[in-house]
Amino acid sequence: MLITLKEEAPKKEREALLLWLVSCGLHPQLSQLDQMPIIGIEKNLPEELNRELRSNPIVVDLIETSLPYKMVSRAVKNTPTVIQIGDVEIGGDEITIIAGPCAIESEEQLVQTALGLKKNGVKILRASAFKPRSSPYSFQGMGVEGLKIHKRAKEKHGLLIETEVMDPRDVAITAEHVDILRVGARNMQNFELLKELGKCNKPVILKRGISATIEEWLLSAEYIMAHGNHRVILCERGIRTFETATRSTLDLSSIAIVKQLTHLPIIVDPSHAAGRSDIIPALSRGAIATGADGLLIEVHYKPKESRCDQRQALSLDEFHAIATDIEKVAKVMGKKV
Amino acid sequence: MLITLKEEAPKKEREALLLWLVSCGLHPQLSQLDQMPIIGIEKNLPEELNRELRSNPIVVDLIETSLPYKMVSRAVKNTPTVIQIGDVEIGGDEITIIAGPCAIESEEQLVQTALGLKKNGVKILRASAFKPRSSPYSFQGMGVEGLKIHKRAKEKHGLLIETEVMDPRDVAITAEHVDILRVGARNMQNFELLKELGKCNKPVILKRGISATIEEWLLSAEYIMAHGNHRVILCERGIRTFETATRSTLDLSSIAIVKQLTHLPIIVDPSHAAGRSDIIPALSRGAIATGADGLLIEVHYKPKESRCDQRQALSLDEFHAIATDIEKVAKVMGKKV
Amino acid sequence: MLITLKEEAPKKEREALLLWLVSCGLHPQLSQLDQMPIIGIEKNLPEELNRELRSNPIVVDLIETSLPYKMVSRAVKNTPTVIQIGDVEIGGDEITIIAGPCAIESEEQLVQTALGLKKNGVKILRASAFKPRSSPYSFQGMGVEGLKIHKRAKEKHGLLIETEVMDPRDVAITAEHVDILRVGARNMQNFELLKELGKCNKPVILKRGISATIEEWLLSAEYIMAHGNHRVILCERGIRTFETATRSTLDLSSIAIVKQLTHLPIIVDPSHAAGRSDIIPALSRGAIATGADGLLIEVHYKPKESRCDQRQALSLDEFHAIATDIEKVAKVMGKKV
Amino acid sequence: MLITLKEEAPKKEREALLLWLVSCGLHPQLSQLDQMPIIGIEKNLPEELNRELRSNPIVVDLIETSLPYKMVSRAVKNTPTVIQIGDVEIGGDEITIIAGPCAIESEEQLVQTALGLKKNGVKILRASAFKPRSSPYSFQGMGVEGLKIHKRAKEKHGLLIETEVMDPRDVAITAEHVDILRVGARNMQNFELLKELGKCNKPVILKRGISATIEEWLLSAEYIMAHGNHRVILCERGIRTFETATRSTLDLSSIAIVKQLTHLPIIVDPSHAAGRSDIIPALSRGAIATGADGLLIEVHYKPKESRCDQRQALSLDEFHAIATDIEKVAKVMGKKV
Repeated sequence: MLITLKEEAPKKEREALLLWLVSCGLHPQLSQLDQMPIIGIEKNLPEELNRELRSNPIVVDLIETSLPYKMVSRAVKNTPTVIQIGDVEIGGDEITIIAGPCAIESEEQLVQTALGLKKNGVKILRASAFKPRSSPYSFQGMGVEGLKIHKRAKEKHGLLIETEVMDPRDVAITAEHVDILRVGARNMQNFELLKELGKCNKPVILKRGISATIEEWLLSAEYIMAHGNHRVILCERGIRTFETATRSTLDLSSIAIVKQLTHLPIIVDPSHAAGRSDIIPALSRGAIATGADGLLIEVHYKPKESRCDQRQALSLDEFHAIATDIEKVAKVMGKKV
Repeated sequence: MLITLKEEAPKKEREALLLWLVSCGLHPQLSQLDQMPIIGIEKNLPEELNRELRSNPIVVDLIETSLPYKMVSRAVKNTPTVIQIGDVEIGGDEITIIAGPCAIESEEQLVQTALGLKKNGVKILRASAFKPRSSPYSFQGMGVEGLKIHKRAKEKHGLLIETEVMDPRDVAITAEHVDILRVGARNMQNFELLKELGKCNKPVILKRGISATIEEWLLSAEYIMAHGNHRVILCERGIRTFETATRSTLDLSSIAIVKQLTHLPIIVDPSHAAGRSDIIPALSRGAIATGADGLLIEVHYKPKESRCDQRQALSLDEFHAIATDIEKVAKVMGKKV
Repeated sequence: MLITLKEEAPKKEREALLLWLVSCGLHPQLSQLDQMPIIGIEKNLPEELNRELRSNPIVVDLIETSLPYKMVSRAVKNTPTVIQIGDVEIGGDEITIIAGPCAIESEEQLVQTALGLKKNGVKILRASAFKPRSSPYSFQGMGVEGLKIHKRAKEKHGLLIETEVMDPRDVAITAEHVDILRVGARNMQNFELLKELGKCNKPVILKRGISATIEEWLLSAEYIMAHGNHRVILCERGIRTFETATRSTLDLSSIAIVKQLTHLPIIVDPSHAAGRSDIIPALSRGAIATGADGLLIEVHYKPKESRCDQRQALSLDEFHAIATDIEKVAKVMGKKV
Repeated sequence: MLITLKEEAPKKEREALLLWLVSCGLHPQLSQLDQMPIIGIEKNLPEELNRELRSNPIVVDLIETSLPYKMVSRAVKNTPTVIQIGDVEIGGDEITIIAGPCAIESEEQLVQTALGLKKNGVKILRASAFKPRSSPYSFQGMGVEGLKIHKRAKEKHGLLIETEVMDPRDVAITAEHVDILRVGARNMQNFELLKELGKCNKPVILKRGISATIEEWLLSAEYIMAHGNHRVILCERGIRTFETATRSTLDLSSIAIVKQLTHLPIIVDPSHAAGRSDIIPALSRGAIATGADGLLIEVHYKPKESRCDQRQALSLDEFHAIATDIEKVAKVMGKKV
């Protein structure tokens, strides 16, 4: 259940209400939806307690829902959420393409890739300073040094920038350097990280875990929202199955289902799903036609020199061909790039 | 390896060649590609044996490939195969929509559904007389009686008709009554059925098994081709994963991969993959944009009276809305419906 | 629901009852449990119809159950079913080891392997004449010729014999030659095959499909029972998952769950699950300790000359070591080999 | 490749060697195996570099291996690692049973449960202060307050204690309070957490992720070892599959495979795998018979009052019955409890 409160409700009375809910055996989370304070609790309450809540002068309304996620759901907001970042709007009439290299390697690499992408309508540059790698002996990313390069390069290319964050201790410094933070598939249920992101004032891209159900994914989005940050963008990137022709099995059905269950925008990462660059054009068209709000694509100005995931990175030329296709499909969907 | 033979090679010499291959410890299959006799064997042979083969007067050429499937692969034919059935071409410039009810229930049901579909550009009516059901106590289909109704209704609606076959003993009679035979997901590795279909003169739709890799699927297509029938249409219908929001996880990546590996056409069945009608429009658009040659969709003139899989059947009105969408996406792909 | 009938109920009245049930929109199956005729139907009926049934003079009792499978379930029989074949009892106080080569290759191979196994307490020899192979170019088994060799060798080694059947057309001839028929994983939902096996008078080993839930597996057993054959032995052989270290993931939990849900015996095939011989001893011990009634193990007197699945076949010496281990674990479980 | 160094090698020269390896484009990790300093790098080096390494006076030996994990593997140590904690030895001739409640709820709960377990031979009490929960509105554990209760209760019951850690920021304080730290399935690839655990001086139980291959699991163990902590205990707890009768599918094959690939001990958690208490006895026996070094079982002195995972917790009486069984199976395996 969700409890919406008056905007002007004094802090003291909010806290009294939270304590009362805790005394009922609940684990309430106070968040903010647009300007409105909102409390989430695990379940709907019996009518007796509801009456008591309604009689509380700071309570505006009770929103009951049997869904396990609350703020994420259409029960609380039945229109699509559009997330504004600079002059980009994610979740509205535009298809947002976020592209760039897997890892930050150098300023040169970022600027050259960004300028090439800019010509094809891309407005957000992706690149990771912190890299989750299966082996402790693999390149782990440039760390904070990489964040600084990312920010510095931005002055030259002018795109918005996004990056992955893996450690709750890195959330604050990462939020200082970039415009959008990304949670990778392996960290979708790193709840301490999600809580920190809830306290951060930058939008968050939340990738689906490779073994996460749609319900678990939405509950992870709920973590970020329940802890205060409502600017969450879901990202489908494939699930682990028995099929080995692709690295993961891209689950495009999730787009249509997410659109029904939630008001949040959803983008698709065909690069990490496929793990091979040759089918990215087909999957990108498919994702947009299925209803995705955008794409997250790996592009490198010199793919063969990429320090990780070489097989899946597109060259700028290959990306150019896709961009044209995407524009056409977007048009059929009543959207523009 | 494949061995192509002269069209006019006498039967006796073909058989001598087959026997010689058997004596080398191989399991050769003699088939026919267009007019050309062609023999498939499990592996490439050592140069010594190749020399002996090349010196055989009925041998035209040896086509080596390290892929486990041979006739299915682009090694033998690098242009897309277009399958002509009546005035419909599957695998060419047209998107083929095959639609209709899950099961044959009555002539009225078939004719009414077919006439409704015809107005929306559908040229092939699907409907099953033999139904694979998990429980022995469920409706098992009308059997041969159903085949007769299917054929009789055709005279009234004029569409081409297709149906599922489950038992090798039913292949011949089914082929007499319909234009296209379908192998369901559960029978993808029913090898005795595939062998019978190899001897049949009607095109076959081969659905992917819910736990089949793409490689296993293509090997099952190879069974049909190696036993003589080269008119095979692949059909992606989702694989079994941990996700429960959909009945199966539709693997649209398989379209792009199949297109690279084989010359055969591929269509998509979003209805059985999703197991729910609400996301069929999104999945249909996604499938076409990803590159599918057609769709297999469940439509019933009175979905609520359907005797099986009610949740996934579309009404004629719902189908109408999809058909318009599909046409637009097809256009972007340079195809027409 | 199940309806038990008087043993002496005349055929005419049974048929009248079946017709009446069909007229209620049901799909009844008449079978026989021990000597008692028994009818299975899809669901429990409303009290009104139950009253009518109870008043029918040939009806003994109504057994209601909300489980999808009926005759298989403990609702109908709460004590373990022991299946007697010759002097072997499967499902009782003995651990039954069925062992032998993957495929029938020659009489010599069968006799030599059988004699070696006999010394280690094995009483049933497995070997397949019909082989389901992914590729049409692989050895497909010796067919009916193999069945004859199997039967002929039996006279020399004296073990009971079992073999796989894949085609409904082969059920009758196979039942003439062997003591136990086996349904492979790929055919668990080959319903036409299951129906034929329901009419056959030999016990059937039903392997779990690689993507079958336990519920689907029990429903397939129900097919065989509902069509008349109640001597069904379940066989866990692993399910398909993302893990590639083993060919399938052996699901030993299924043993404990099957034992709760059904009265049927369950054995385990570690060989096909693992696809590698090195871990068969560990899995065999684990299966017995978890509660399996027996094992199905691949053993070849000359594993390196095996015509299929070489990597998983044990030598007679390796089998000897396992047999000793199994005996010890069986003892802990209060059973003997 | 692994490079072993002289125990007395001066810090300065070790660092010079690390820098030289970095200059070769590698990502070396310096760790310590028993008393011996050891460096792990991603791959084997060309002979030229090997020569240079061997001529370095602090280098003792080069251990080449093509496996992705190094210190974990049997290439570096071919005898089982026995981890000593107090008077308990994990990985040797004893079966170690770690049991206790899911979450720390009160001192009373811990002491009562521990005393009951102690009577049945349990020497380590499990209980979590930090709880990873899918929903932000669920009980998240008592946190540091819980750690204090855990430690305080220990004085009364005298068992060793273990607990889960989820956040790299909590590793130090957790290590101060308990004897063994546990990494839950969701955090198996939380690499920043693994790195912190590498620097900690307490043994670590590393659970397999629900979608982790065995190789990825061993690489995560390698993270902890490469960062300095060699006391790692693997814990199989089931993988996510399509089967819904159990919460996860316990993969007992992994025990046998892990034993071949690594020298580390492996225990099994049947409770979280099954998600239901009724099959825990069967799975516990199966795990020990397959070769596990121990078990991690959820037991609560009042299961119905448990604040989480009630369905899977055993009562003390139920646990008593299992303990007797386990002892018998252990004996067959040549071990004692």
